[in-house]
Amino acid sequence: MALRKGARRISSSGDEERKNLLMSIAGALDFSRERIREANDADLKAAEDKGLQPSLMKRLAFTEEKIDSSIQGLKELCSLPDPIGRVLEKRELDPGFILERVSFPIGVIAMIFEARPDALVQIAGLALRSGNAVVLKGGSEARNTNRVLVDIISEAAGNDWILGVESHEDVSILLGMDRYIDLVIPRGSNAFVRYVMDHTRIPVIGHADGICSVYIDSSADCDKALSIAVDSKTQYPAACNAAETFLVHEGAAPVFLPKLNAEFARLGVKVHADGKAIAYMDGAVPAVPEDFDTEFLALECAVKVVSSIDEAIEHIAEHSSHHTDAIVTESEDAKRRFFQDVDSADVFCNCSTRFADGFRFGLGAEVGISTGKIHARGPVGLSGLMTSKWLLSGHGETVAEYSGRNGKSFHHKELI
Amino acid sequence: MALRKGARRISSSGDEERKNLLMSIAGALDFSRERIREANDADLKAAEDKGLQPSLMKRLAFTEEKIDSSIQGLKELCSLPDPIGRVLEKRELDPGFILERVSFPIGVIAMIFEARPDALVQIAGLALRSGNAVVLKGGSEARNTNRVLVDIISEAAGNDWILGVESHEDVSILLGMDRYIDLVIPRGSNAFVRYVMDHTRIPVIGHADGICSVYIDSSADCDKALSIAVDSKTQYPAACNAAETFLVHEGAAPVFLPKLNAEFARLGVKVHADGKAIAYMDGAVPAVPEDFDTEFLALECAVKVVSSIDEAIEHIAEHSSHHTDAIVTESEDAKRRFFQDVDSADVFCNCSTRFADGFRFGLGAEVGISTGKIHARGPVGLSGLMTSKWLLSGHGETVAEYSGRNGKSFHHKELI
Repeated sequence: MALRKGARRISSSGDEERKNLLMSIAGALDFSRERIREANDADLKAAEDKGLQPSLMKRLAFTEEKIDSSIQGLKELCSLPDPIGRVLEKRELDPGFILERVSFPIGVIAMIFEARPDALVQIAGLALRSGNAVVLKGGSEARNTNRVLVDIISEAAGNDWILGVESHEDVSILLGMDRYIDLVIPRGSNAFVRYVMDHTRIPVIGHADGICSVYIDSSADCDKALSIAVDSKTQYPAACNAAETFLVHEGAAPVFLPKLNAEFARLGVKVHADGKAIAYMDGAVPAVPEDFDTEFLALECAVKVVSSIDEAIEHIAEHSSHHTDAIVTESEDAKRRFFQDVDSADVFCNCSTRFADGFRFGLGAEVGISTGKIHARGPVGLSGLMTSKWLLSGHGETVAEYSGRNGKSFHHKELI
Repeated sequence: MALRKGARRISSSGDEERKNLLMSIAGALDFSRERIREANDADLKAAEDKGLQPSLMKRLAFTEEKIDSSIQGLKELCSLPDPIGRVLEKRELDPGFILERVSFPIGVIAMIFEARPDALVQIAGLALRSGNAVVLKGGSEARNTNRVLVDIISEAAGNDWILGVESHEDVSILLGMDRYIDLVIPRGSNAFVRYVMDHTRIPVIGHADGICSVYIDSSADCDKALSIAVDSKTQYPAACNAAETFLVHEGAAPVFLPKLNAEFARLGVKVHADGKAIAYMDGAVPAVPEDFDTEFLALECAVKVVSSIDEAIEHIAEHSSHHTDAIVTESEDAKRRFFQDVDSADVFCNCSTRFADGFRFGLGAEVGISTGKIHARGPVGLSGLMTSKWLLSGHGETVAEYSGRNGKSFHHKELI
């Protein structure tokens, strides 16, 4: 596959070269606004005819403002330090015999993502900055816009490291190309991510559910707890990092829950409350067990009263999807316990679960959020697109010299 | 599954606690030599009756010397720094709003390995040191020894983090337990590793072929090249890091190849030489194209004359299994080119490919060598058994405050 060669070329390119290519793309996008608008208008019209939901129409529209921020995003990628060739480990095995582990691009990455043209630009930019070749399969509603964007990017920065594919059949073909593709990053519904994982032997980084919880400790500051709960649930309920479950210590429940109930009633949040919580929450419906395993992705949540931080940690171990879980507490001990014992990608104290995001984390941008534990966990930025290689420099050393009873021994001196 | 709870307990245990458990295991092994010998004798007798190959018999025997070095290995694991809780990134998102990425055990790891009792002790030790729970499936020829070793380890260090399984059916069951097992590390034949990858949705770290090459540059020192070639090929030909292919620059060929040929003849190495090389290598057989894609794992190799370093790099890109490739050169430029452009787990200059090994690299020990690019690459030691989690500590921050035109902005100040 030609991309394999392109990956090699782009992985060998220097920092300046990749930055210049990113700037060329930024310039080309700016210069091609008309061409982009025409393609995007065609996509928007087709989507309207098909009756696409308004929220999806909004994502599909590549407005002037979004083009501006895409250009800005490419410029910001240039300001991040070169991710290639960073020395991650350095060790002297014996005098003058030096081992280094340096960062290196993964190779060819396939990204499957939703109908959002700005995502295409961002992903292509991340791939180029990190020296990877990329296969892009965007949502089919954005087909015309995507095609034009891949053309513009290829014209500005070469076409050997980027390939746009369009059809569902192409996805099946991609998933079978384990000799040519090193990593697949699917975004979309759980069912889709699951499907990808089940139909390829290529490694997959993806995220499953976002069942995030907020635990309000007995020592929580009630006002903080309230604004964190409201933000976590309502600031953007359709996001994977929105909270679905609230666990409230029985010591905090009598004061906190009536206030939370009033706020949630005002904001139209439907509450499923367990046996103890419902006493403090007029209008809530009784929770059934499945409510605590549900990703509502809407103005709806489950509330449970717990008798200890241990019960909260236990509940999270059983029911959370290990995406993002938060504690609200004024106790350093409780915070330490929670940070230690909750095994989720993101574990927060005294802030909203909604901060779980590559941009907010300062990663520049993100290709997705991983709920897996292998390779990358949580928001995945440039570093998630890198692997490493071991470089060993000697002066004729053989293993035979270091073998047997009288063999030389290694001194393994750390150099960084 | 009980191991999930055991994994949580062991991941929360302190450095001292895990070191004490390792020392308890070391003591118990020392105390139980008689019990181990009885079990191992039973395995050896059964294997002899079945006519097991001598080399496999040798691996199966858990001699006093191997018990000593297993005990020594456990003590050495104690001397490595605690892999849990290392701060990998630290960033202030806004004054007082601190994000950290810290290392954390992966959880439950399933290791499938050959009939080598010392490997069981080493893997259990690595798991415990890194705070992971482990399912061990050793080669069935070592069944009795393995059972006794798991018993001894459990008696000394608790049984909630370690589980030994014995049958092939158990492997199928393990591979289906993607809710309970976070990572599978299979060792064994390529076909077996492939089988594992094809029959599980659990992430797999494994290695495929070890087709390693040594490129002798035009500027190579002939003596160094000779001893490196001999060591890479003959020091232990059955190892995955032994060299299979020698690429020789046409400038070096007339002097180097006759010497190499004489040494290889003396050592009984069969040579498959390409059209140009055969002129310098009496007694070699003409190479066919498949010879350059073959892992001989024996005193046999393929030799090719190339006209440039580019041709060598190109050959490696096409034919190497990207495990370990070495250059012999006195030119800094050639070294730089090779280190930059060869995309293999291990890229060496002026030393034997046989150095590709966790112990020699100073990783303490290894669970295997990864030829994949995801998560871990090359020899996999303690750090390959770790993931990370993001910890964010605030004072009531909400995303709403940081949103919209007048929202606060992040300052993203790196703290390490």
